[in-house]
Amino acid sequence: MIYQEEVNISTTGENDIINLTELVENIVKKSRIRIGMVNIFIPGSTGAITTMEYEPGLKKDLAEALARIAPREIPYEHHKRWGDDNGRSHVKASIIGPSLTVPIKNNKLYLGTWQQIVFLELDTRPRNRRLIITIFGEE
Amino acid sequence: MIYQEEVNISTTGENDIINLTELVENIVKKSRIRIGMVNIFIPGSTGAITTMEYEPGLKKDLAEALARIAPREIPYEHHKRWGDDNGRSHVKASIIGPSLTVPIKNNKLYLGTWQQIVFLELDTRPRNRRLIITIFGEE
Amino acid sequence: MIYQEEVNISTTGENDIINLTELVENIVKKSRIRIGMVNIFIPGSTGAITTMEYEPGLKKDLAEALARIAPREIPYEHHKRWGDDNGRSHVKASIIGPSLTVPIKNNKLYLGTWQQIVFLELDTRPRNRRLIITIFGEE
Repeated sequence: MIYQEEVNISTTGENDIINLTELVENIVKKSRIRIGMVNIFIPGSTGAITTMEYEPGLKKDLAEALARIAPREIPYEHHKRWGDDNGRSHVKASIIGPSLTVPIKNNKLYLGTWQQIVFLELDTRPRNRRLIITIFGEE
Repeated sequence: MIYQEEVNISTTGENDIINLTELVENIVKKSRIRIGMVNIFIPGSTGAITTMEYEPGLKKDLAEALARIAPREIPYEHHKRWGDDNGRSHVKASIIGPSLTVPIKNNKLYLGTWQQIVFLELDTRPRNRRLIITIFGEE
Repeated sequence: MIYQEEVNISTTGENDIINLTELVENIVKKSRIRIGMVNIFIPGSTGAITTMEYEPGLKKDLAEALARIAPREIPYEHHKRWGDDNGRSHVKASIIGPSLTVPIKNNKLYLGTWQQIVFLELDTRPRNRRLIITIFGEE
């Protein structure tokens, strides 16, 4: 059995992190799939999906670690092409990745106690984002 | 067809890397699924799943590269919140990710010759970990 | 329904990035799967799969960011073992990962407008690579 749903979210801009867990959990419930897995995907190249303990301190720590990989203040070849300012956003998004698959058991996400599914806004401005939730499994 | 199994492993602490390949291969065999894919997931926010050539030198090289992204000696906002010492563990885990999907062909993992499925213990202390193995496919 | 296909590509060596989007799109079409997901996997530990806006500037920016995580000029323990020169290749590949799952809707990849599926050659020499494309879903 397959169930697919699209959801829209809005972000406040660079380094905004949105907790998707409840939203995804509700779609899993609606799907009635008892055992299987759910994939969360961002169609876009300046956002990423992963998991984390969702607390304000770690949101800052993660942003700072990503800035060590792709600092704000250095030149990017990407900027020469389009006059863009978001070379660092693209680089971070490619490294973390746009896709996450989480197992389902008893019609629930099988996450750790403190583990949340998150969308990372890496672009340099607020964005409206569409996410694709695809669920596979047995009722 | 879906097959799901939970397995428990123990780690010796920070930067321990456990080779999961044989364990996952055995579950694939038991599932009798001939063609499809297997997802390996860690429910927890201070461990990660990926692949690597499993040899002692690379275990050190990978740990050192991750320490460049999230060094031990810098302050983390996360530590202020809970008195924790594992801000770097969380950051590394979110960047690598908790989930890996590997194709199955002829009832076997389709890996490269030197490629192994591994669990990375990124937390600062030894942990008992439960992993979720979910297999999809046709017999 | 499951559909699996293997494809061969050739790379020019370190930091070559191959746009796989059209190739994967054609396999999705052939599969006739209307709704579901496709997994792209590299069996090998010195290549990686992710998505990016495929333009020459970002190819350089991504290579430079990865070199900050695993620089060329430092010593790697891996080199002592086999006389290899590709410790950095392995480290980058483990961090980005060998596997990507993308949703399918209306028998098409559900990607962003500028988002392409790419293979990153991280090894230090040209390689012939086999990729495994596994598609799940309903016609």
